[in-house]
Amino acid sequence: MKVVTFGEIMLRLAPEGYYRFLQADKYGATYGGGEANVAVSLANFGVDAAFVTKLPDNDIAEGAVRALRAANVDTSCITRGGERIGIYFLEKGASQRPSKVIYDRAHSAVAEAVSSDFDWEKIFKGADWFHFTGITPALSDNAAEITLQAAAAAKKAGLKVSCDLNYRKKLWSREKARKIMTELMKYVDIVIANEEDAADVFGIAAPGDVTKGEVSRKGYVAVAEELISRFGLEYAAITLRGSISASDNRWSAVLVSKGSEVFSAKEYAVHIVDRVGGGDSFGAGLIYGLTHFDDPQKAVEFATAASCLKQTVEGDFNMVTVEEVIRLAQGDGSGRISR
Amino acid sequence: MKVVTFGEIMLRLAPEGYYRFLQADKYGATYGGGEANVAVSLANFGVDAAFVTKLPDNDIAEGAVRALRAANVDTSCITRGGERIGIYFLEKGASQRPSKVIYDRAHSAVAEAVSSDFDWEKIFKGADWFHFTGITPALSDNAAEITLQAAAAAKKAGLKVSCDLNYRKKLWSREKARKIMTELMKYVDIVIANEEDAADVFGIAAPGDVTKGEVSRKGYVAVAEELISRFGLEYAAITLRGSISASDNRWSAVLVSKGSEVFSAKEYAVHIVDRVGGGDSFGAGLIYGLTHFDDPQKAVEFATAASCLKQTVEGDFNMVTVEEVIRLAQGDGSGRISR
Amino acid sequence: MKVVTFGEIMLRLAPEGYYRFLQADKYGATYGGGEANVAVSLANFGVDAAFVTKLPDNDIAEGAVRALRAANVDTSCITRGGERIGIYFLEKGASQRPSKVIYDRAHSAVAEAVSSDFDWEKIFKGADWFHFTGITPALSDNAAEITLQAAAAAKKAGLKVSCDLNYRKKLWSREKARKIMTELMKYVDIVIANEEDAADVFGIAAPGDVTKGEVSRKGYVAVAEELISRFGLEYAAITLRGSISASDNRWSAVLVSKGSEVFSAKEYAVHIVDRVGGGDSFGAGLIYGLTHFDDPQKAVEFATAASCLKQTVEGDFNMVTVEEVIRLAQGDGSGRISR
Amino acid sequence: MKVVTFGEIMLRLAPEGYYRFLQADKYGATYGGGEANVAVSLANFGVDAAFVTKLPDNDIAEGAVRALRAANVDTSCITRGGERIGIYFLEKGASQRPSKVIYDRAHSAVAEAVSSDFDWEKIFKGADWFHFTGITPALSDNAAEITLQAAAAAKKAGLKVSCDLNYRKKLWSREKARKIMTELMKYVDIVIANEEDAADVFGIAAPGDVTKGEVSRKGYVAVAEELISRFGLEYAAITLRGSISASDNRWSAVLVSKGSEVFSAKEYAVHIVDRVGGGDSFGAGLIYGLTHFDDPQKAVEFATAASCLKQTVEGDFNMVTVEEVIRLAQGDGSGRISR
Amino acid sequence: MKVVTFGEIMLRLAPEGYYRFLQADKYGATYGGGEANVAVSLANFGVDAAFVTKLPDNDIAEGAVRALRAANVDTSCITRGGERIGIYFLEKGASQRPSKVIYDRAHSAVAEAVSSDFDWEKIFKGADWFHFTGITPALSDNAAEITLQAAAAAKKAGLKVSCDLNYRKKLWSREKARKIMTELMKYVDIVIANEEDAADVFGIAAPGDVTKGEVSRKGYVAVAEELISRFGLEYAAITLRGSISASDNRWSAVLVSKGSEVFSAKEYAVHIVDRVGGGDSFGAGLIYGLTHFDDPQKAVEFATAASCLKQTVEGDFNMVTVEEVIRLAQGDGSGRISR
Amino acid sequence: MKVVTFGEIMLRLAPEGYYRFLQADKYGATYGGGEANVAVSLANFGVDAAFVTKLPDNDIAEGAVRALRAANVDTSCITRGGERIGIYFLEKGASQRPSKVIYDRAHSAVAEAVSSDFDWEKIFKGADWFHFTGITPALSDNAAEITLQAAAAAKKAGLKVSCDLNYRKKLWSREKARKIMTELMKYVDIVIANEEDAADVFGIAAPGDVTKGEVSRKGYVAVAEELISRFGLEYAAITLRGSISASDNRWSAVLVSKGSEVFSAKEYAVHIVDRVGGGDSFGAGLIYGLTHFDDPQKAVEFATAASCLKQTVEGDFNMVTVEEVIRLAQGDGSGRISR
Repeated sequence: MKVVTFGEIMLRLAPEGYYRFLQADKYGATYGGGEANVAVSLANFGVDAAFVTKLPDNDIAEGAVRALRAANVDTSCITRGGERIGIYFLEKGASQRPSKVIYDRAHSAVAEAVSSDFDWEKIFKGADWFHFTGITPALSDNAAEITLQAAAAAKKAGLKVSCDLNYRKKLWSREKARKIMTELMKYVDIVIANEEDAADVFGIAAPGDVTKGEVSRKGYVAVAEELISRFGLEYAAITLRGSISASDNRWSAVLVSKGSEVFSAKEYAVHIVDRVGGGDSFGAGLIYGLTHFDDPQKAVEFATAASCLKQTVEGDFNMVTVEEVIRLAQGDGSGRISR
Repeated sequence: MKVVTFGEIMLRLAPEGYYRFLQADKYGATYGGGEANVAVSLANFGVDAAFVTKLPDNDIAEGAVRALRAANVDTSCITRGGERIGIYFLEKGASQRPSKVIYDRAHSAVAEAVSSDFDWEKIFKGADWFHFTGITPALSDNAAEITLQAAAAAKKAGLKVSCDLNYRKKLWSREKARKIMTELMKYVDIVIANEEDAADVFGIAAPGDVTKGEVSRKGYVAVAEELISRFGLEYAAITLRGSISASDNRWSAVLVSKGSEVFSAKEYAVHIVDRVGGGDSFGAGLIYGLTHFDDPQKAVEFATAASCLKQTVEGDFNMVTVEEVIRLAQGDGSGRISR
Repeated sequence: MKVVTFGEIMLRLAPEGYYRFLQADKYGATYGGGEANVAVSLANFGVDAAFVTKLPDNDIAEGAVRALRAANVDTSCITRGGERIGIYFLEKGASQRPSKVIYDRAHSAVAEAVSSDFDWEKIFKGADWFHFTGITPALSDNAAEITLQAAAAAKKAGLKVSCDLNYRKKLWSREKARKIMTELMKYVDIVIANEEDAADVFGIAAPGDVTKGEVSRKGYVAVAEELISRFGLEYAAITLRGSISASDNRWSAVLVSKGSEVFSAKEYAVHIVDRVGGGDSFGAGLIYGLTHFDDPQKAVEFATAASCLKQTVEGDFNMVTVEEVIRLAQGDGSGRISR
Repeated sequence: MKVVTFGEIMLRLAPEGYYRFLQADKYGATYGGGEANVAVSLANFGVDAAFVTKLPDNDIAEGAVRALRAANVDTSCITRGGERIGIYFLEKGASQRPSKVIYDRAHSAVAEAVSSDFDWEKIFKGADWFHFTGITPALSDNAAEITLQAAAAAKKAGLKVSCDLNYRKKLWSREKARKIMTELMKYVDIVIANEEDAADVFGIAAPGDVTKGEVSRKGYVAVAEELISRFGLEYAAITLRGSISASDNRWSAVLVSKGSEVFSAKEYAVHIVDRVGGGDSFGAGLIYGLTHFDDPQKAVEFATAASCLKQTVEGDFNMVTVEEVIRLAQGDGSGRISR
Repeated sequence: MKVVTFGEIMLRLAPEGYYRFLQADKYGATYGGGEANVAVSLANFGVDAAFVTKLPDNDIAEGAVRALRAANVDTSCITRGGERIGIYFLEKGASQRPSKVIYDRAHSAVAEAVSSDFDWEKIFKGADWFHFTGITPALSDNAAEITLQAAAAAKKAGLKVSCDLNYRKKLWSREKARKIMTELMKYVDIVIANEEDAADVFGIAAPGDVTKGEVSRKGYVAVAEELISRFGLEYAAITLRGSISASDNRWSAVLVSKGSEVFSAKEYAVHIVDRVGGGDSFGAGLIYGLTHFDDPQKAVEFATAASCLKQTVEGDFNMVTVEEVIRLAQGDGSGRISR
Repeated sequence: MKVVTFGEIMLRLAPEGYYRFLQADKYGATYGGGEANVAVSLANFGVDAAFVTKLPDNDIAEGAVRALRAANVDTSCITRGGERIGIYFLEKGASQRPSKVIYDRAHSAVAEAVSSDFDWEKIFKGADWFHFTGITPALSDNAAEITLQAAAAAKKAGLKVSCDLNYRKKLWSREKARKIMTELMKYVDIVIANEEDAADVFGIAAPGDVTKGEVSRKGYVAVAEELISRFGLEYAAITLRGSISASDNRWSAVLVSKGSEVFSAKEYAVHIVDRVGGGDSFGAGLIYGLTHFDDPQKAVEFATAASCLKQTVEGDFNMVTVEEVIRLAQGDGSGRISR
């Protein structure tokens, strides 16, 4: 099985430990971005995964390519050119102090890419699955156009298409998001969202206040069902994060099928190491689960356990194996030393 | 509004993470000290804040001046001269292991300063508020004398005067503290204390055992009332720390007014990053709150939220903005990423 | 009083913080190993402690000797020679992600040592106590032989002999462990074990599932009693770890005497900094407690508090003093700053 | 005396030591830029120095402001707004491997600033000297326009105006540079250039090949004279770098006056720590020297010694005092420990 | 063109900067080994390069695979299994203090590999060049056997075969080396050696004392000629290192052809950053040069410049591009900043 | 053979690499001080060495004791008590920028020690040699008194006494130094000095200007002869440092005997890693050489080579072995890798 993902990978610059930006004189440099994170997760699970993007021809961007390649991601369809690689600065929160992200991604190579930069027919040759997130079309009008072309080409080539809604308010308005995401939904089989995305993008809200740590599983099932029925999806999955504080979260998910079957995952109490990329690791886990297990319940448990583990790992990338995920999904969350 | 604080700023040397002194071969070097911390907090809130001290004329002390200046604190009234800058070594505790402080502050420039080092009339020109803590007069007989001169001059110049009792048993005895602090109280309008200070300095004890994590709000209201009536204060505020362990604290405060109104702040469960300077950040928050909000309840909530956030930030200085404090005071302690 | 311990000390290589092996490009280098850890703990308590092993004659091994010497451990009976020092790689877990240990200890100098490398009569001159763990005889057939010689010599010389069962499944099978450990038990007065060791080595199981965080004190008392009666011991102690997650453990212990008296220690909720060496620090605490206090209850409380503190300290070695342990054992686990 | 400089300050991200970009997973974060570097140098010399720029309103840019403020630079005329702070990545060279700079400065706040962002009349109130470099007008057409306005306003307000040609081929073509710099020259009294700038910008070449390490003082005197006569300058100074390798440079300068007097500085053999900002520190040294010494020879010696020292200091900023510069200028380059 | 190399890749553990082993509590962790280094160099030059070895199935070895893959080396023919990855500890020298290497490579997976671990026919499919060094057959008798099989298979498949003599006295005696290397020479077309290897392995000595920094080009031409005639080689290349100190070396090489043509490279004065891997980078440069340039003089200049640059780069791997090498080979060793 | 040294050991705090104090937010923490450095050097040579001092009873001072103990120095005669351990801050220079030392050693435990803190008769039991430097008596009047008592006791007990003049102008005036050092000379057999000490302390000057890098061997022989004749010494040794820059020094020494024999050591061109402790390592090398070789020429060559190597090692302590020193003294300064 081969999965293709398309989007932006950025240089991530984060002060060590719990230092704030104003205290930092050193930044840890890694790379990340929604769809790249999904590709890396899948490659760590042993899946053949390719990441498609456009990156400039300099050493900082080359670093991103090498990080992907080290993780066994196929980088052969990355177009080189353009002005710059996007950057994001991450300050890790603790207790009542939230994490803080400063984006410096405007004018990136992929945001300014053009349709002719990608030959989707060639890219999808031999592939089985296409994944993108709502961030990619939000990058620019060009990027939206290209995403539409990619999704259409994927559909045409017979790939399964999944999309993580991932609404980013700094990139586009809710109105624009709704318009373009609605168009993209035509090609999508499986939607993934967090507790707020469906409301932000499609106005499909669930009750409760996420800033209070309240998680209403029932309400989110309704959201998933509405997504399925509105867009004719195969599955809709919603991750459920109860933010007790920046240090402690509750984490779970529900998966709902076209036939309104509800698969509800176990809930984890996560002591957060790095929550960025949690949703992406869920997406990767779900793709893996739906294609490797016969049971959607197993799939959502795998996805939830995988993304629980991600939040205990530094960086955007989920550096865990299938065996580690299964051990947790099967109930050993004791954290006893593995010698 | 302009606030002047007076005291000692020290070089703080702390091993990284949770290494003990006996394991350290590298010390993170920052600067801190009660009144300097208050000045920095206020400057971060946008208040015009000046810190007064005496520092030797070498690069280590110059580092302290630059750290203050970077934070926008007015350093123009710092006298240069004397032998050395005080140092304190900090080993961060975890779980049942307490943090450990080794002071090496004897013979510091400010401890050996003389009255003629400071021209208080000039220093207080244009200022509205004077803040000091019980550490400054404890440094030496000279320092006690100068603090008295400063407090008297502040009062005379019509400034509001606040004092954080901050008893340090390594610096002076309870007897000496009571004698000198009683004298200083003549000039003080607002007193801040933690759960133990009032008992240590003035013998005004509240019931309960702080090492057990018990916090009796009621008892501390009584302590505050006694402080107000004994010294004719405008306000007395007491911070309430429930030390569950070195890693987890409960944190709150009460503010009592001359008229015996009680303003009781919300209680936070803090996962500690660095608790040093917690009381100072409360003091700064209270000064800000009492001068920027019309409602003492808002002031104590602001002060408590500010100092809750401080304990999630590395270093003595509270690197947070008014907006961040207000967001927490208004109830969002979920720690969700701020993108 | 003088204690001798015998075993392997390894170079420990661990990525900083919560980085996984695949993310590491820097390893913190310290040294550790069951019996060395016990010796260091005891030396930190002021006891005259000697560690016996064989180490190659190179700078990496010399680093181990210097680390021991710095901690005041007598290294004069360490034989130099052989090919290599054992290494272990440690990846620290967090939340649901377990810590991970990769051993690279085969062919170490001590695993390939021969009987003539150690003159036990000379080594035990003036000593009062001999301690070893089940790891040492597991290293190789030679090592098992030498351990037997050591234990016999200790007994003959009138030393008290203690053994921490410490079963390592990567080093030997349960069958082999049972055979050799049974032989060794002839010389042992005091046995220490964790919740699983007695079952792994001697098939003496207690009810409950350790991966679920369940701790049945009663069941473990029965295990201890069975150990005492089967091997004619003076004491058997069992540490009780409830692994809630890699970040949070419950920690306690029971000590049972020949006369079936049960001494049950307080339970601690530990926020883990580094749990490696927890059992060793308990062993050292017990040796200290049984020889310095008149009351076995005090001994087990001391041992449990000591090992609670260990888990808040980085590295294998328990860098705490008798005073710190007693303060915690007497009930101050508040973690308030010690100034 | 008060000096105003105008230009761009960037976040500088540099791998530690001699690691190449492709090896870096950590970047040291400091700030720098031609005119900011000059302002910091002057402030370190005790001069009242203000830096003018436009910076976005986020923490990364706030870091730049705080770095300047720490160094005692007046930041009160910095306009806040715009999209991003420029970034440059620096890989330090060694021996035959050159240092490498990757610019990511397009679309920075100052490059997209507009005339109304700066009120030059107000900015220059009380100032004596205005300094800019050829980088600022190269940033964008807007920036060129604003630089012209600034230079004209400075002239009108009676300030002395200095300009470091600093040609950057990635920012503009030689043609465009010549056109705009020629216009700016109308307002300039003192020009500073390195061995290549005059040729690049104005086509005024000196013989010899800088990549061969040849330094022809005579040829550069001719260049300086041509600059003076072409633009009616008071002084022209040319720094002379003989690049033996990335690790070892020869460093000197010539200063020529309107009256064709030549002041030729001593030559230093510099073992390079960080050569970035060398020219800027020369500029600052020259401004200081021409305003504080009666003798242009002393001025050029001071400037050359100052910039020699800069190259032994990490970062863009020249962290040296007047006393240190004078000691070197007077001949003590022995590097003996100053206790 | 495709190049295959075969050998051992080790974990390299090196204290930062100039710390000695006895001072280190942190080791930088990279990977390296003669033939792996050659593969990485070639991949950085854009050549299709595959590295063949055997590595255990754990995360430390997986790190080596990922480092190779990041650098674009084909790792698909690496056999997984065996006990451990070899380790070497490196202490960097300075001035008169030599670098120090401690090997801990015995019992590594590749040293204990067996013939059936590698299917050379399959491995060499599509390949043009096979490279190995004298270290591989020295690892063990098995490894010698496998190397012979590989060389014979390469020859049979029509590949060009190159060998770097690389004598390691800790791995085998001169007698054994001579015996086995003589056998291997049957299959070799091009030999690379440093100043001492030919003497150590084949007793072919050149005059002069390498510890005195003397380099006699003439003598080494004679050595090369003797190698060519004795083994019927196409080319023999000898690197010439004049060790002035651990910090400063002179570096050059001679290449001699079957027809006794001598191609003598320029000599570089290198200020050493990291000299490990210098010879390997020369080998890679020579393979690149002989296959990409029509002129052996250009080839040896390219190889010498490439390996000069390597010594300015941290780690075993030569992280430089063809463009960078050519710029230096063409004479720009000035180290001027490349912006 | 057993050597006793007496003096002060300080906490040394130094920014990493070439960062200046004003840039540092991290200090490397090691320990050092003239006589402690000598003891460590000797212990590294395998000599039984004891260091005597007074240190306070806190963890920072305990770190010094552990560092000494790790290096095999006998710490059993260190008195515990007093207020603080002395501190010195070290900023490493480069090229024309000198290293900078800021002392914060006033009021240290040893400076405030009293005679009864040391029982010299007991301390010298079994010892053969006593070494001190001119720093110890300069610490305070008490320290001078104690040094006199120690030297007298050593003489009386039949020890050989050596003294390194080590003049520190910040600690005492030349007048006071001359008076007290003259008294101490009565007990001294061997004097060590650098190029300036004899002039500073006793007014015995040699021609030439050390800041110019001029080293006149002849002049210093005259100085040594004058020292011998004035104080009736057995030997006088003078180290000769030619400071070309902070990065490059020339280093040699002369040893003159009572009989006016001159033993002149080879001169080394040292690329400096850390020059602090250079003189101390010479002293230790001389003590070792005079007691282990029959030939004073060998002794001074050993001492000079040892101290050459020290300057390539980070920290005050000379971490080298006898074998390493002898290899250099015998002429191998090539710095070729020792595998």
